Amino acid sequence: MDKFLDVFNFATLPFYWGVFPDYWDGFEPEKGKPRTKELKAAAQWLKERNVTVKGHPLVWHTATAPWLLDMSNEEILKAQLARIEREVTGFKGLIDMWDVINEVVIMPIYDKYDNGITRICKELGRVGMIKEMFAKTRECNPGATLLLNDFNTSINYEILIDGCLQAGVPIDAIGIQSHQHQGYWGHEKLEEVLNRFSHFGLPIHFTENSLLSGHLMPPEIGDLNDYQIPEWPSTPEDEERQAKEVEEMYSILFKHPLVEAISSWQFSDDGAWIGAPSGFIRKDNSLKPSYKVLKKLIKEDWSTNVCCKTDENGIISFEGFLGEFELVCGDKIVSFQLDKDAENVQLVNLLQTDVLV
Amino acid sequence: MDKFLDVFNFATLPFYWGVFPDYWDGFEPEKGKPRTKELKAAAQWLKERNVTVKGHPLVWHTATAPWLLDMSNEEILKAQLARIEREVTGFKGLIDMWDVINEVVIMPIYDKYDNGITRICKELGRVGMIKEMFAKTRECNPGATLLLNDFNTSINYEILIDGCLQAGVPIDAIGIQSHQHQGYWGHEKLEEVLNRFSHFGLPIHFTENSLLSGHLMPPEIGDLNDYQIPEWPSTPEDEERQAKEVEEMYSILFKHPLVEAISSWQFSDDGAWIGAPSGFIRKDNSLKPSYKVLKKLIKEDWSTNVCCKTDENGIISFEGFLGEFELVCGDKIVSFQLDKDAENVQLVNLLQTDVLV
Repeated sequence: MDKFLDVFNFATLPFYWGVFPDYWDGFEPEKGKPRTKELKAAAQWLKERNVTVKGHPLVWHTATAPWLLDMSNEEILKAQLARIEREVTGFKGLIDMWDVINEVVIMPIYDKYDNGITRICKELGRVGMIKEMFAKTRECNPGATLLLNDFNTSINYEILIDGCLQAGVPIDAIGIQSHQHQGYWGHEKLEEVLNRFSHFGLPIHFTENSLLSGHLMPPEIGDLNDYQIPEWPSTPEDEERQAKEVEEMYSILFKHPLVEAISSWQFSDDGAWIGAPSGFIRKDNSLKPSYKVLKKLIKEDWSTNVCCKTDENGIISFEGFLGEFELVCGDKIVSFQLDKDAENVQLVNLLQTDVLV
Repeated sequence: MDKFLDVFNFATLPFYWGVFPDYWDGFEPEKGKPRTKELKAAAQWLKERNVTVKGHPLVWHTATAPWLLDMSNEEILKAQLARIEREVTGFKGLIDMWDVINEVVIMPIYDKYDNGITRICKELGRVGMIKEMFAKTRECNPGATLLLNDFNTSINYEILIDGCLQAGVPIDAIGIQSHQHQGYWGHEKLEEVLNRFSHFGLPIHFTENSLLSGHLMPPEIGDLNDYQIPEWPSTPEDEERQAKEVEEMYSILFKHPLVEAISSWQFSDDGAWIGAPSGFIRKDNSLKPSYKVLKKLIKEDWSTNVCCKTDENGIISFEGFLGEFELVCGDKIVSFQLDKDAENVQLVNLLQTDVLV
């Protein structure tokens, strides 16, 4: 985990209600036995290390609780809302950011198998479903950051967001998945997607990014979950490609004024979704080039490291990236934060030093 | 026009704000000179012949007023709303049904040429735009039937309608275009579209139907307006095909409980949109087989024609299609209406006859 903490300050914890086959055990695969304790321990551990934690997802048709199928639609809705209440209230303070609902564009027409969430989404409609789920989540944690999340980056998702906003759904950030198992989007598609989803003026989170250091998945696979192979090796040449793609993609996202979070879906190839070599470290824990590239971007290129002398009034001024700073003066260290709305930062009493931004 | 009135009881009048090249002169191509008088005369003429009239469309990016381009977005919005107010108020009583806004799915991304409506739709968003336009139309004619209309029958349009309804837009009927210049949808697609758009429980109007009695347009043409040929003949074998398609399509639509209107986009090949042989009569005014087929369906198969005798209480009962009826008894004739909500129809005093439905 040191390798993780060395580069990242944000983590997504899995709250899949049911079992995600070959991937995750589920939060409450058996009714009445939620894994609250394990998840709280994980969230607590991350919080103590200054990692912001997001819960993913509160509502989804895939990997949902199988026992919903025995219920009437009215009971399913009640159970789903009670589930939101339990998790969002129970994790408040540890988790104040949620992917409230996942992949609603296909939710009511998902036909791979019957499931309780698709059933109620058919009845409520997409926007009606989102509205109910956001209202309950907001009620349970008024200060939380709430996301709508989808892999669909087409006009469908734009129209869905537009409808939600006009219907008064309190979306705090737009979540965009970018699993690129079938090939890197490239800067043109990336910029086009950013351009279209910027129209809403809302923060954008790249919630689930995957770039592979192995062979690509054939383009004809529709649902990525369907691609099952015994071994998916990471190769030296693909690792170089992955590093270049990570560098370009993260750089474009970092400089976009509305992008506020980028989550890579896998840190390690070990246990990665669908077994893809999409991590920054290999199964043996060794670092891939993509890890080194990203660490350099975050810890060097996008860090501010300046030495200055105060002027006659005790003021220093410098230009720097937004974020957390440490001001070191002799053997004294003081932390401060630069954010978008900050004007002057005054640290007068501590160090007899002012910082002017 | 006798041929028209013999079969149809509903007409769409063109309110394109600007010139529709090679098709229509426009309602107000020159600012301040609306063709109110001509359109009123046409609406009046139709009304006198018991033809329900719909105005089409109040808002559209295609064939809109070119002089909007000289305005700021604020001014365009003001002009558009004033235009709605003028037409909807002015035609109230003559026209109480409007295609309020046309083709919003592509409206903000329409890039064939710059136009004022796309500009303001980009700014307001799709649902925001629809909301404003419906609110103004409703304000000017509270009792009117208001439609959203689109050629896009994909999930995009479903999500757009869902968002509008959740945002409180007072849509009275969903308008679905079905220009089939590139081939008849067939019953499977037709039923699939009906099935998807029935979820909202709203009345459905097939607002713009085209079926050709000539060769089909090549499938690679994206915007049908782009297909320009000097002559597009109606042929005997294609006329037979058209008649079969009309029969099947109209029969499926007629029996669907939510379909309340079907408009063919062309009555005659003369002056038909993009010159396609899509009418029920040829350029020389002779009847195509499709005319005869449709007339038989409407005037015979879907008409109720029964002779009955009253029972000892003076009551007759029969099963019949919904709509207008004439009860003939000796030399007395009385009209009545059967509609969905009707229970008994009592015509006691006039003919000493009760009709029990």
